[in-house]
Amino acid sequence: MNPSPKPRIAVDAMGGDFGPHVVLPGALQAARAKQFDLLLVGDETRLAAELTKLDTRGVEYRIVHASQVAEMHEKPSDCLRRKKDSSIQVASNLVRKGEADGMISAGNTGVVLASSLFTLGRIEGVDRPALATILPTERAPLVLVDAGANMDCKPLNLLQFGIMADVMARTLLHCVTPKVALLSIGHEEGKGNLLVKEAFELLKLSPLNFVGNIEGRDLFTGEVDVVVCDGFVGNVAIKLGEGLASSLGRLLKGELRRGFFAKIGTTLALSALKRFSRLMDYAEYGGAPLLGLNGIVIVSHGASNAKAIRNAVDMAGTFVRLNANKLLREGLAANKDFVHSAKRAAHAAE
Amino acid sequence: MNPSPKPRIAVDAMGGDFGPHVVLPGALQAARAKQFDLLLVGDETRLAAELTKLDTRGVEYRIVHASQVAEMHEKPSDCLRRKKDSSIQVASNLVRKGEADGMISAGNTGVVLASSLFTLGRIEGVDRPALATILPTERAPLVLVDAGANMDCKPLNLLQFGIMADVMARTLLHCVTPKVALLSIGHEEGKGNLLVKEAFELLKLSPLNFVGNIEGRDLFTGEVDVVVCDGFVGNVAIKLGEGLASSLGRLLKGELRRGFFAKIGTTLALSALKRFSRLMDYAEYGGAPLLGLNGIVIVSHGASNAKAIRNAVDMAGTFVRLNANKLLREGLAANKDFVHSAKRAAHAAE
Repeated sequence: MNPSPKPRIAVDAMGGDFGPHVVLPGALQAARAKQFDLLLVGDETRLAAELTKLDTRGVEYRIVHASQVAEMHEKPSDCLRRKKDSSIQVASNLVRKGEADGMISAGNTGVVLASSLFTLGRIEGVDRPALATILPTERAPLVLVDAGANMDCKPLNLLQFGIMADVMARTLLHCVTPKVALLSIGHEEGKGNLLVKEAFELLKLSPLNFVGNIEGRDLFTGEVDVVVCDGFVGNVAIKLGEGLASSLGRLLKGELRRGFFAKIGTTLALSALKRFSRLMDYAEYGGAPLLGLNGIVIVSHGASNAKAIRNAVDMAGTFVRLNANKLLREGLAANKDFVHSAKRAAHAAE
Repeated sequence: MNPSPKPRIAVDAMGGDFGPHVVLPGALQAARAKQFDLLLVGDETRLAAELTKLDTRGVEYRIVHASQVAEMHEKPSDCLRRKKDSSIQVASNLVRKGEADGMISAGNTGVVLASSLFTLGRIEGVDRPALATILPTERAPLVLVDAGANMDCKPLNLLQFGIMADVMARTLLHCVTPKVALLSIGHEEGKGNLLVKEAFELLKLSPLNFVGNIEGRDLFTGEVDVVVCDGFVGNVAIKLGEGLASSLGRLLKGELRRGFFAKIGTTLALSALKRFSRLMDYAEYGGAPLLGLNGIVIVSHGASNAKAIRNAVDMAGTFVRLNANKLLREGLAANKDFVHSAKRAAHAAE
């Protein structure tokens, strides 16, 4: 509510495929560069030992002990019940108690979602918080929501995702009037599955700058600023993009080393691939914010390297400084009447 | 039923973004190379005029007049009602009457689906025909089904898609025991939306070589031979792959022309990009078969060039020679008991 001049970010230091070894350096870099305070959550002894090896000058930090760790493939409901002292849960508690202004975790995404929803609760007007992700395009980046928090959605959920992502595009990506689109199988109205067709009707009438459907084919050209879809489709889509970019990168690398170009190929390939792979490099953005919670929560990729963690912590601090949740509340309030009447219509139709 | 020694392929010569100008040369090339007979369906006068400009030596063909054309964005139900003499409808009729052994169209996909389903009907044991597409990977190509015929599916539909695509992978891609996977958001059982979770249960118990879920990330590495999903997700996925490959191609082209590599860059870029873009080039496979109809129907991309049409006609002829629908019927029969009991269970649960 009343963020201190220096954002205080709780970092799940045990999360991700590489743990404290990678998370701590990334968090320290962000904190030093952007003037954040850190609450490093995890096994006290292990973190203290790790920190002796690192340069902590200029960073105010505090270790907050957590005796448990959520495993990467643990079922969220099991974890919430059995591991009340997991680093994810302890970080959520710090945000709830107001000791931290935001948190980041590269741990089990399902556990982060469940734990933060349970601990922090939702913003008024949000039925389901959603994971937003920033996707690079040929022009400016866009916000895709939901990237994987909600598998089976209703049209009203998609409308709310659009409203929240619109605020995010305005504030984080500095779009003046974000173009909001629905991910579908054709541009024309009436194309798509039942969910998309009904969400189209809602978005068309909403106060958002809704530009209609967008096909997967046009996702990366940069025509729109916000892409709305359910969390299943969104998650399949971003992972497919990630995988295809890697596959093409590998093939191209092999290609450039062939035949008579072999000698100059390697140098050139490395230079080209570096920028090329950056297009789909999650580390550039580092984190995906969970929109709609009573608190700032940034989810980071399990495979995050130190750079990705640095960028995720950076995003958390930026959200705190922007007072992102206040802006979200305002955005939701501005669309409140419309959402309300859409909700009434949906109930009447049931 | 009794294909003539030379497959007779009905070609919707009016279909696609470029019409007869591109469709005819492609069809003639395939017919000449593979010894097919052609039934060229469309405006008689226009086709005859177009053919005078082309080399038709060695190809037996017949023009079949159709007075109407389905527009690319026409609604299928409207088109079926109002354009009973569209080139798509006339081609479907030729297959139904046994005058053609198969057909291809690069026209309005929705109209091809509706018209062929209405005219030819379904194979026994298929509730919903599905569009199968061949996707290139880092290793061997795979079959993805459904690529866009069915927007809202039930678990049983996905099971049937898997059975049909399994037959296609065996016959067309020469896999001995195709690995069948479900497209989802995580490898573990229990990940995905409701549809995928229920389809997982069915596929797990089925006689297919079901290997579990596959994430979008691993689609292009070539670990599996068949990927099953609903038509909405499948269509979004393949169009996203197409769009991302184009975007990366454009970025890379720009990249390789920069700075001190400018001089050698262009040559190298063209060489690399050529093979690189082939990975996602629909023209390599040309067509997507509609599986589950009483007849062979190949759908081609609206933007098909002559090469894509050639490959689509080639696929149609290959399906005829392989007696693909007989193999499909056998595959469905082999899984009949299992599908039957799954159906009973689904009805009981309703």
